[in-house]
Amino acid sequence: MKEKIVGILGGMGPEATVDLFRKVLKATPAKTDQEHLRIIIDCNSKIPDRMAYILRGGEDPGPYMIKSAKLLESAGCELILIPCNAAHNWHGVVQESVNIPVLHIMRSTLDYVTEKHPKTEIIGLLAATLTIRAGLYHKIFAEKNIEVITPKPEHQEMVMKAIWEVKAGNTGPDVSRLLAYAAESLVASGAQGVIAGCTEIPIVLKNEGLPVPVIDATNALALAAVKEALGRA
Amino acid sequence: MKEKIVGILGGMGPEATVDLFRKVLKATPAKTDQEHLRIIIDCNSKIPDRMAYILRGGEDPGPYMIKSAKLLESAGCELILIPCNAAHNWHGVVQESVNIPVLHIMRSTLDYVTEKHPKTEIIGLLAATLTIRAGLYHKIFAEKNIEVITPKPEHQEMVMKAIWEVKAGNTGPDVSRLLAYAAESLVASGAQGVIAGCTEIPIVLKNEGLPVPVIDATNALALAAVKEALGRA
Repeated sequence: MKEKIVGILGGMGPEATVDLFRKVLKATPAKTDQEHLRIIIDCNSKIPDRMAYILRGGEDPGPYMIKSAKLLESAGCELILIPCNAAHNWHGVVQESVNIPVLHIMRSTLDYVTEKHPKTEIIGLLAATLTIRAGLYHKIFAEKNIEVITPKPEHQEMVMKAIWEVKAGNTGPDVSRLLAYAAESLVASGAQGVIAGCTEIPIVLKNEGLPVPVIDATNALALAAVKEALGRA
Repeated sequence: MKEKIVGILGGMGPEATVDLFRKVLKATPAKTDQEHLRIIIDCNSKIPDRMAYILRGGEDPGPYMIKSAKLLESAGCELILIPCNAAHNWHGVVQESVNIPVLHIMRSTLDYVTEKHPKTEIIGLLAATLTIRAGLYHKIFAEKNIEVITPKPEHQEMVMKAIWEVKAGNTGPDVSRLLAYAAESLVASGAQGVIAGCTEIPIVLKNEGLPVPVIDATNALALAAVKEALGRA
């Protein structure tokens, strides 16, 4: 079966785009350059801030994402990935604008959790405030009766601070610590796993020290993309 | 001045493409997503092997590179980077095929060396055999009267082995060691610096232990690209 060309609608943020790119390469069974998938990336960091739009009435990022999706489609891409959880608030309008599948990071994460951790009933979510308020994970995980729990306001502020630090290029242990603290409080509230549900988060939060698995949404999307591109989905 | 959209003609190999992408982000003065440059990447790993073409009569990668350069130009890119040293054997034909500048990794590396290490008279080169045989560094460094020296055949074999290992995803210390050994022999022959002149090499060879600077050609290209894109070249 012919392999599909993978499109990445990136730039939200650029480091998260690098992270997804790397994870797609890692998920591909390849020993030579030519065995890798062709990947076309539009790392358009100029897309307006997603949170600023919702929370403070900034410019709508939707039309920018649609333009980028169309560019990827016209360049020959046969599926699209969006390495930004909050941007999935616009998944529907982006999908409607093109004739190729736009994978859905929350759905890829749910597929990963139900396959690898089938007994999960309560899952913690570390994500941008927009992702939480829009219920992006809650709605999809409810399909499998998995309850999504989120940090208390003071811990959510720490998560947001960490996300901004990663966007500014700070990926040091102080930033990991902010996230680990919020994750620990979710575990204390009964979470049987913690979703790293903002693409900046898995860049700094690894599994160290937590008694439950950290579910890397970016990696779940990469695995789904490679399956789809190789015709094994 | 309006920032330029950066195009990356990648896939030769994909890990080297990730490496250049990261280095362009790192070289950009940005604290938010929106302050980063827009970067469009065609990571076309299907481009035929450069060395196989020259050394064993494989398929010509040139037409593939031209197609990719045109795709980047039509997507709106205003300059092109090629994260593969050996592919610069085709720099001329790629440049002729588009109306936007295609930066030249050897020239960016020479600019870096003359700025940062102005006293250099002899420089060592770790590169793919094709890059060496085509004299890609030799010709350009001769303009500034810098002599380029290369490993003995038995050390060159180690360099090629290391390049293939990185392409296959092995970036462990055993691979760094192969390169460090070849680099040390160049230093013993008088090299005042060693160019990591294959984009797979700086992924594993850092400066550790060598008494002379390792010149990362990928990073030199990233620095030149950011200057050009910000209108400061």
